Amino acid sequence: MLANHLQNGVETAKLIWSRLPNAEDASDAELDEDGVLRNDGFDGVESLDYEVIENYAYRQEQARRGKLYVWYYVGVKWFFALLIGIGTGFAAVLINISVENFAGWKYSWTFTIIQRSYVAGFIVYTSINLALVFSSVYIITQFAPAAAGSGIPEIKGYLNGIDTRGILLFRTLIGKIFGSIGSVGGGLALGKEGPLVHTGACIASLLGQGGSTKYHLSTRWLQVFKSDRDRRDLVTCGCAAGVAAAFRAPVGGVLFALEEVTSWWRSQLMWRVFFTSAVVAVVVRTAMGWCKTGNCGHFGSGGFIIWDLSDGQEDYSFAELLPMAIIGVIGGLLGALFNQLTLYITHWRRNYLHKKGNRVKIIEACLISVITSVISFGLPLFRKCSACPDSDASIECPRAPGMYGNYVNFFCTKENEYNDLATIFFNTQDDAIRNLFSAKTIHEYSAQSLLTFLVMFYGLAVVTFGTAVPAGQFVPGIMIGSTYGRLVGMFVVRLYEKLNIEEGTYALLGAASFLGGSMRMTVSLCVIMVEITNNLKLLPLIMLVLLISKAVGDAFNEGLYEEQARLRGIPLLESRPKNLMRKMTAKEACGNQKVCYFTRVVKVADVAAILRTNSHNGFPVVDQSRSGETMVIGLILRSHLLVLLQSKADFQHSPLAVDMRSQSIPIRHSLSDFVKPVSSKGLSISDIHLSPDDLEMYIDLAPFVNPSPYVVPEDMSLTKVYNLFRQLGLRHIFVVPRASRVIGMITRKDLIFEDNDDSGSVELQSTSVRGRHRGGNRVRTRNPDVGQGQGHPLLNGLLE
Amino acid sequence: MLANHLQNGVETAKLIWSRLPNAEDASDAELDEDGVLRNDGFDGVESLDYEVIENYAYRQEQARRGKLYVWYYVGVKWFFALLIGIGTGFAAVLINISVENFAGWKYSWTFTIIQRSYVAGFIVYTSINLALVFSSVYIITQFAPAAAGSGIPEIKGYLNGIDTRGILLFRTLIGKIFGSIGSVGGGLALGKEGPLVHTGACIASLLGQGGSTKYHLSTRWLQVFKSDRDRRDLVTCGCAAGVAAAFRAPVGGVLFALEEVTSWWRSQLMWRVFFTSAVVAVVVRTAMGWCKTGNCGHFGSGGFIIWDLSDGQEDYSFAELLPMAIIGVIGGLLGALFNQLTLYITHWRRNYLHKKGNRVKIIEACLISVITSVISFGLPLFRKCSACPDSDASIECPRAPGMYGNYVNFFCTKENEYNDLATIFFNTQDDAIRNLFSAKTIHEYSAQSLLTFLVMFYGLAVVTFGTAVPAGQFVPGIMIGSTYGRLVGMFVVRLYEKLNIEEGTYALLGAASFLGGSMRMTVSLCVIMVEITNNLKLLPLIMLVLLISKAVGDAFNEGLYEEQARLRGIPLLESRPKNLMRKMTAKEACGNQKVCYFTRVVKVADVAAILRTNSHNGFPVVDQSRSGETMVIGLILRSHLLVLLQSKADFQHSPLAVDMRSQSIPIRHSLSDFVKPVSSKGLSISDIHLSPDDLEMYIDLAPFVNPSPYVVPEDMSLTKVYNLFRQLGLRHIFVVPRASRVIGMITRKDLIFEDNDDSGSVELQSTSVRGRHRGGNRVRTRNPDVGQGQGHPLLNGLLE
Repeated sequence: MLANHLQNGVETAKLIWSRLPNAEDASDAELDEDGVLRNDGFDGVESLDYEVIENYAYRQEQARRGKLYVWYYVGVKWFFALLIGIGTGFAAVLINISVENFAGWKYSWTFTIIQRSYVAGFIVYTSINLALVFSSVYIITQFAPAAAGSGIPEIKGYLNGIDTRGILLFRTLIGKIFGSIGSVGGGLALGKEGPLVHTGACIASLLGQGGSTKYHLSTRWLQVFKSDRDRRDLVTCGCAAGVAAAFRAPVGGVLFALEEVTSWWRSQLMWRVFFTSAVVAVVVRTAMGWCKTGNCGHFGSGGFIIWDLSDGQEDYSFAELLPMAIIGVIGGLLGALFNQLTLYITHWRRNYLHKKGNRVKIIEACLISVITSVISFGLPLFRKCSACPDSDASIECPRAPGMYGNYVNFFCTKENEYNDLATIFFNTQDDAIRNLFSAKTIHEYSAQSLLTFLVMFYGLAVVTFGTAVPAGQFVPGIMIGSTYGRLVGMFVVRLYEKLNIEEGTYALLGAASFLGGSMRMTVSLCVIMVEITNNLKLLPLIMLVLLISKAVGDAFNEGLYEEQARLRGIPLLESRPKNLMRKMTAKEACGNQKVCYFTRVVKVADVAAILRTNSHNGFPVVDQSRSGETMVIGLILRSHLLVLLQSKADFQHSPLAVDMRSQSIPIRHSLSDFVKPVSSKGLSISDIHLSPDDLEMYIDLAPFVNPSPYVVPEDMSLTKVYNLFRQLGLRHIFVVPRASRVIGMITRKDLIFEDNDDSGSVELQSTSVRGRHRGGNRVRTRNPDVGQGQGHPLLNGLLE
Repeated sequence: MLANHLQNGVETAKLIWSRLPNAEDASDAELDEDGVLRNDGFDGVESLDYEVIENYAYRQEQARRGKLYVWYYVGVKWFFALLIGIGTGFAAVLINISVENFAGWKYSWTFTIIQRSYVAGFIVYTSINLALVFSSVYIITQFAPAAAGSGIPEIKGYLNGIDTRGILLFRTLIGKIFGSIGSVGGGLALGKEGPLVHTGACIASLLGQGGSTKYHLSTRWLQVFKSDRDRRDLVTCGCAAGVAAAFRAPVGGVLFALEEVTSWWRSQLMWRVFFTSAVVAVVVRTAMGWCKTGNCGHFGSGGFIIWDLSDGQEDYSFAELLPMAIIGVIGGLLGALFNQLTLYITHWRRNYLHKKGNRVKIIEACLISVITSVISFGLPLFRKCSACPDSDASIECPRAPGMYGNYVNFFCTKENEYNDLATIFFNTQDDAIRNLFSAKTIHEYSAQSLLTFLVMFYGLAVVTFGTAVPAGQFVPGIMIGSTYGRLVGMFVVRLYEKLNIEEGTYALLGAASFLGGSMRMTVSLCVIMVEITNNLKLLPLIMLVLLISKAVGDAFNEGLYEEQARLRGIPLLESRPKNLMRKMTAKEACGNQKVCYFTRVVKVADVAAILRTNSHNGFPVVDQSRSGETMVIGLILRSHLLVLLQSKADFQHSPLAVDMRSQSIPIRHSLSDFVKPVSSKGLSISDIHLSPDDLEMYIDLAPFVNPSPYVVPEDMSLTKVYNLFRQLGLRHIFVVPRASRVIGMITRKDLIFEDNDDSGSVELQSTSVRGRHRGGNRVRTRNPDVGQGQGHPLLNGLLE
């Protein structure tokens, strides 16, 4: 039976099984027509696979460079981590200063004008908002379409192994920075945190790529960062830097990158990510110190901690656990509802509204801006003002007009009154949150105002989500959560009538619960909440609330980013295989399609034909020995075939394989030729012109294959295959027949080698642990005889 | 060539290649003679491998139980996480209360007595210490030898895949708890934090096992926690709980478990670990609240934050970065030196001193206790007292005798004087650290005292490390680090003459630097430091210092736990493959040994002979089809073979394979028969008696093999193999010949299935993402026809 198959392999020379291109395959490159997102192929570059690029003939050369090169490589990595930290830190400072200043001017002008006329004030307020939002949506639609939204689902996809077109371009970076200044400064119900994560990722990616296209650094630099893995590592650093900058929460940043963004994590990377975050913290802190002296206009009031709650509640009693659990449940419900509503609205937008072109997008954003302005200005007008509390002299009530802060006097008849709805609604979001979190301000808000705000803001946040502006969901989430949290807190204060309960504490828990219910993050969110409020004593409570809200939310749907990623056609591989997979084998997962493969030496015409007729991104390469047996010698990527076809340098006239052991084969390609450019489609077969002469030539693919792709036996459970695929970040796995024999077994002790560098401690170790010096006695370099006894000279040559 | 090999396979019926047992293999079960640690085999149970137990014939039955079972399973997991949290929290409270009370009584008695006679005071002090240490070392040597030391290297090894004998037994738990009460209460230079981690792990492991041996719960409970993976997950939770309890740092606990302890991490687990930590936090907090009312004797002064530094330095200038960097460098140097010295001393102890029996261990510990007492009591006598600062009324100086705290009056001539060396030396370690960290106490210590203390304590810590008592390295590390940190801080205060520099801040940074330089942890240590000092503002500085000290330390040697693990013969697989591996293939790693394998139906005598003559823990099972081709059908574990031999239930008279498709084979073994008991050697071949009749029988191994172990082609680079092995937590990998053909390719889109459970959103998704509904149309259960066309009926039967 097996022999039969082998026989088949021999007879059909070039291509035995030709896999029919079906509708799904043909279209996986263009899931989205509007140009905002394009899926760059499901199985593109062998992304995280360790050696894919090094496995070419150049590997030896690289090895020869030795220790110095390794040090250089490591040095560049750390230098880049430093640059990412500095860059993201400065981007965050720029965005923050701009937003605070725009918002500051806006409110101070408005407050000045409403002293005389509320109508004029409204007009000024609305116009400024409109102008800012228009600038944002204009930049996005005309210049950087990929910068719309939060960007976190796309980055998550990128790190999971799916390139979305355009998300890491320079123009996206610019669009993201200036777009979020406009959208956040324009008072929309969205935040700047998600976009900052995307910004960090862009900066990281551009740095990794930067050497090549912009700054003409040496070729060595190129080779350092040409592997997909290194790029993804950089982007991971960038994400962490973005969170660290957005929330001034360095540890939160590391954990966010770890928990939420990356799919594949190594502990060495953690260390570098940690460094990046620390750099961001130092940069942001330094800039803020500089701003404290008044150099930055309206910016500079906040410290390193965004919403300091350290003077909040010191202790809590057991009786409070029940209302806190209720907050958790509310958070889970409202969060899940938020995810579901945004899912529907985004779906509708993508399929109907945004298909109608950029003009519709601009009109939509402007309309939402006007509605937001009307609501945030208009609703407080209907609210009766309350008298200032006269208990404490330390509270300034009302605030001086033009200064935005707590206890805002807005449309009040008397001097010592404040408008509680305006305090949260007619304010920047940062200040509103600060006011909601504030301790020592019991009974500041009426339940009616909070409820009004909650309903209105929830609606605005749902509607705003998905417009063509950069938009984060953190700050709106905190707004919504802290509103109902404070509402619950008010009842608790009334119910238990204890003096040491602070409504602000409940607002914080509410914020945590909503974010937990919507984004379903756990540890990272917890750390971020602690870092932004500077109150470690509330940590167990935050954990509790998060646990409940996530559990409640999970009962309804997936997290916000997962839902959005799905909607955008980003097929994230979840960390856990589906139960369904337990009952399937690897072979069943492949379906009934035939595999399309190449022989080692292949005619150019055949290559071109295959690349034209199907859209697979990787092909097995099969060789046959003199005895007629076939043998899989590796995997060749579509993109590498295209490079070979385009350059034509490796074409040869004879269909004979090159003897690679002769050491005389000239290396015609530099490594960087094979590197896929960041965020672009790369070559396409239709771009390549081949003359009839070319088509008659041959290529020997052996030097270009990945000689050892991971393989699984055909009847392995799909669960196992999934784990392999996901844990190692693969793009292709070969499903092969069961092995006929076992050549060897690798166990733990075969993988324990002693570093001979620290020879000082060798004596010590040798007495205590046996069997660890075997590495020392083994063949250090590839033994040329290996495999020859089995009649695979070609393969052997390939590996030398 | 291939055919040749196949032919060979056919001719030699039972066993072709017999791998010679060599010295290394035969002895890997007993690396250590003194009974404290025994390595339970390098390649024992297929530890983290997903399906190893489920892959028996029972799998189908399990699947039939369906959703209800899954819910039950998940529920039990969470319930256990809750129990682990509660148990570890209570254990921590017990240890803390006991230690504080013993230490409190000790100091108050001593202070009372020294009012009259210093000699009598010294005798009382030394005797109490000696008694406590003796109790500790007696418990350890006589009752629970595995409870000596910190336990973290062993737990790390366990989670990396190596069982060390006895580390998770009930007696170890008891020994750890009561031993550390004695050793810490007895004033030795060690801490209770490491032991608490071990305690948490023991509690977790016992809970997981508890159902089976102690509490006679239902068999369902047994089956839930019989997989190695589940046990390791529980132990991970236990580790996190231990750290959370030890430092009252829940987030730090999660990160510690993630960064330092586990080798293999899934994000689902993070969530559960997080929950456990939160439970611990609540338990500890509740207990401490209860103690505040004075129910716990001397315990109860501290809050949830151990060493509150929140009133410390608010800001820092750029000029301070240099001295902080110096602290980092010192920390790296002293930490690396500490690791090296302890390595030498431990090596000497293990190989010479501790070989001489338990009496020597007891004498050693008692001797060290006396030396510690002499130094900590005697040295302050030689120190001239300083006058109390009269600046601030809020500082109580000197403290009332009997109350241990800052500004200790010890052997001072005048009333308003204090002895600065006694303040740190003649004190509990917690209080000493609190005093070193304390802000607003500039110039409390003289450089001379700090230097004396540093040298003496460093020496004591090195000598104490490795004695036969439970011993953590965190608190001594913090002591050492904060001493030189404060020393540097003193110079900085003098140098810059700024008033807002706090020496306590530098002490904190020093502590971080020493721990970083010794343990080489990053993110988790950073979070722990922040959580125990409650000062988020110092976070960037702690990060900076940790970065430097780890980098400096890494230049010299490995982290403390790695060094100790190596010394104890625990072959940890590091997260990164060695560079050497790049140049090796999988085949070279196996060496030249022949593989010893079984045929599907094998004679009992042969099994027994093979198990006797070699010590491998896993064997390939090979079958041959009617056409004479051999085929690897799976992996059988030594431990499972032993179970089969012992029970004899599956012996059969004929050498014919059972037709498993007939559905008539009785299942003679329950799943739990195959489960290895926690922390014991399990069966040995010498325990099994086989009659001559038995030896003539046959066993069909097919129902008991793991049908799809991971395989790699023989010429795959060892780097790739290593990653596979480490990332998936494997124990065995088969090295097989290159495949002759590729049956299929698995790419990302083959692994994306749509959950059909949430059918509500299907319509939505189907329009936006293509190709995700394929799962729905596929074969849901194993198709009996699969594979039949290829002539593997037996294999097929196996999988049904």
